[in-house]
Amino acid sequence: MTAIVVGYVPKAEGRAALRRAAEEARLRGARLIVVNSARGGRDFDDDDAVRADAELATVSQQLKDAGIEAEVRQLVRGMDVAEDLIAVAEENTADFIVIGLRRRSPVGKLILGSNAQRILLDAPCPVLAVKAEDVD
Amino acid sequence: MTAIVVGYVPKAEGRAALRRAAEEARLRGARLIVVNSARGGRDFDDDDAVRADAELATVSQQLKDAGIEAEVRQLVRGMDVAEDLIAVAEENTADFIVIGLRRRSPVGKLILGSNAQRILLDAPCPVLAVKAEDVD
Repeated sequence: MTAIVVGYVPKAEGRAALRRAAEEARLRGARLIVVNSARGGRDFDDDDAVRADAELATVSQQLKDAGIEAEVRQLVRGMDVAEDLIAVAEENTADFIVIGLRRRSPVGKLILGSNAQRILLDAPCPVLAVKAEDVD
Repeated sequence: MTAIVVGYVPKAEGRAALRRAAEEARLRGARLIVVNSARGGRDFDDDDAVRADAELATVSQQLKDAGIEAEVRQLVRGMDVAEDLIAVAEENTADFIVIGLRRRSPVGKLILGSNAQRILLDAPCPVLAVKAEDVD
């Protein structure tokens, strides 16, 4: 069974990536692997962690309700987001990875962060880059 | 009918992008718009142009044979690749754009060129980035 790996953070770009990844999983009858590896990262505080836990529980339930075979992985193994996503994609021979591109507030300009660049270049599979406003 | 836009150049990364885009078009019953806008670009010489013409004719035939509704556009309107692809995606409310990431020979290291970066950030839709070895 094909697998799609999606990088999730409880922010607009993470939700956009997840929504699109869920659509793609449904379209292909693929398994969805939701990777939340941001915990412990530099940009992540305690409030974010609490929100992430709550959202991930909701996310799991929504995917289940939608009939999508999904697993949610909370990765806290000291690797950065790019390494986590690439490792999971390799382990599961993923069809592709879905990532969200983030906005630098308050100006709202999109940026291609170093993690996004590394995933795009180093992933063993194609990468679908989604912007928050693509679906929100 | 949904449309998928793919940037094509007669090189490994262009063929990889096209192959993946054709698979996605078939999966969704989407229309495929193949954009070859590299003619006249800085990295493009006469030999490339001849190869591109020959390959595009073959490409059109292969897509037709595969039952994929496709059109091949040879854009020579003085815009760069990123602007061309984004304009075509906007005009056709594309579902997503497929691009190939290129290798800088002879070292073979992948790079995220300025065109790829602009497409990823400025496209009105998600962007699927494919590497040559993803399918070749």
